[in-house]
Amino acid sequence: FPYPQVMFTACELGVFDLLLESGKPLSSDAIAARLGASTIGVERLLDACAGLKLLAVEMTQEGALYRNTEISNIYLTKSSPKSQYHIMMYYSNTVYLCWQYLADAVREGRNQYERAFGISPKDPFGAMYRSDEEMLKFMAGQNSVWSICGRDVLAAFDLSPFTQIYDLGGGGGALARECVSLYPNSTVTIYDLPKVVQVAKEQFVSPEEHQIAFHEGDFFIDSIPEAELYILSKILHDWDDDKCKKLLAKVYKACKPGGGVLLVESLLNEDKSGPVETQLYSMNMLVQTEGKERTAAEYSKLLDAAGFAVIQVKRTGKLYDAVLGRK
Amino acid sequence: FPYPQVMFTACELGVFDLLLESGKPLSSDAIAARLGASTIGVERLLDACAGLKLLAVEMTQEGALYRNTEISNIYLTKSSPKSQYHIMMYYSNTVYLCWQYLADAVREGRNQYERAFGISPKDPFGAMYRSDEEMLKFMAGQNSVWSICGRDVLAAFDLSPFTQIYDLGGGGGALARECVSLYPNSTVTIYDLPKVVQVAKEQFVSPEEHQIAFHEGDFFIDSIPEAELYILSKILHDWDDDKCKKLLAKVYKACKPGGGVLLVESLLNEDKSGPVETQLYSMNMLVQTEGKERTAAEYSKLLDAAGFAVIQVKRTGKLYDAVLGRK
Repeated sequence: FPYPQVMFTACELGVFDLLLESGKPLSSDAIAARLGASTIGVERLLDACAGLKLLAVEMTQEGALYRNTEISNIYLTKSSPKSQYHIMMYYSNTVYLCWQYLADAVREGRNQYERAFGISPKDPFGAMYRSDEEMLKFMAGQNSVWSICGRDVLAAFDLSPFTQIYDLGGGGGALARECVSLYPNSTVTIYDLPKVVQVAKEQFVSPEEHQIAFHEGDFFIDSIPEAELYILSKILHDWDDDKCKKLLAKVYKACKPGGGVLLVESLLNEDKSGPVETQLYSMNMLVQTEGKERTAAEYSKLLDAAGFAVIQVKRTGKLYDAVLGRK
Repeated sequence: FPYPQVMFTACELGVFDLLLESGKPLSSDAIAARLGASTIGVERLLDACAGLKLLAVEMTQEGALYRNTEISNIYLTKSSPKSQYHIMMYYSNTVYLCWQYLADAVREGRNQYERAFGISPKDPFGAMYRSDEEMLKFMAGQNSVWSICGRDVLAAFDLSPFTQIYDLGGGGGALARECVSLYPNSTVTIYDLPKVVQVAKEQFVSPEEHQIAFHEGDFFIDSIPEAELYILSKILHDWDDDKCKKLLAKVYKACKPGGGVLLVESLLNEDKSGPVETQLYSMNMLVQTEGKERTAAEYSKLLDAAGFAVIQVKRTGKLYDAVLGRK
């Protein structure tokens, strides 16, 4: 069974939020009543969550009582600073739907937005941003990821020599926020599509965050301003080699001498031995984008072709790794 | 990611069959060409299968070569006697589609055939048997399961005293086949809907299997003939308590004195501590049926209410367990 959907469903219905608010263990009947959901459905959902260690259950004289685990309080409640709520809703409503057509994706070698949403496969971000609501979910989802994974990838190299930084496709700004927090002398400009920048300003980045700036544009079409460091975090994996090369060539041209580019991606092993998470991620790139996950050698080759030198690779041991190229 | 879909897709496209036939490791390009699928899709699928240990990959001078693992040869090829191909296709094309609506199922407390297939939720088997092709897939899928799980549940109790056995809802007959093989003095009559019996005779049970007989009918509506033992294998979990009680009362009435009923089900622990597989299975019963998984105490209560006594429970340590009640 696609068991992560048990977690997605409990998140969507607000089970973890309710149990956090209540401050005490609740029965399945009480939870069902408060959530306006069926008692038979909620009891089973809670039991499956308990089996998956997302909830703790205690048998009492009044029957079974459920409460959040520590992990659930941190990651599965909407209000937690490390909440993964939005990325889960994105997985549940977009990613899993595209995966229904995995066999078609393998046959055709292309993404499945047409089958999943009736949207042209030729513009993956047009599909992912198919409504303001979906765009917001995606941005909030990426912010969830960087709120827990951002620090590791930014600390993989000492980026303190770079004070003027562009985050290309920086979206909701969570990675930029981690960056200025880790490197207090830096300024990070989020370069993204106008509608993304607008939402980022309205919903995610406060005007008081003076070290975070914005630049509106499409970095494949519009010019890229000069800077010391460009971050491309989960950008290249969305595109084929040709498009990656064009983008990196533009970045190289814009880059100050002595500056660099930081790629944040999940790296495949050179010998195809894994990591299995990244191999699955690459399948996801097939059903959702024009890109794929790559090995360190493949990224080095792309950077090299664009003119970057002194290429360094750091595996973080977690999902996302870092590759730094210098001009 | 819903990673079992990687396995489903490789099965559907015939990757494991091709590698079994070929008898030697093949490149992803060769496999893509033979399957008529995209090279970029197939390479990624093979790599993900290797990451999931469904394939072995070897780096050679001509590039990566892929071959089946022993497990894949046994369970994932269509031609193997223990093939799980059909049950995977059933999961991929029916179960996973219903799970897309898990949140709706929990809210509403009912199955999701209407959303998934536009079919009334009031007749789960009407939905599962929505076409001859789907019915065949389901029957073949259940046969896959019993070809590897049947022996354990039938050996949980010594059933040799019972020679005249009815398998209610016995479908494609794989459990009946295991039964007559394990108990050579027994005759097993498969009692199922006329269209199921017809397909079982045509596709699954040969006329030479003299110890297997058939009886056409709907055991909720039509009479149940007298016998020494009735097997209800994954039947009660499809229905609510009321319907279970009615069915068991009919079975009790038909049963010879000294006879019994064998329930084959996946048992939940009494204290809600698991097994997590069964808890997830119970979620599946929510999205697909009118039933649920139950504890041994719950089944004992149902049997007791129908008049059965000397109720014995045997956990097999695998997915399916056995409960025997005597008249």
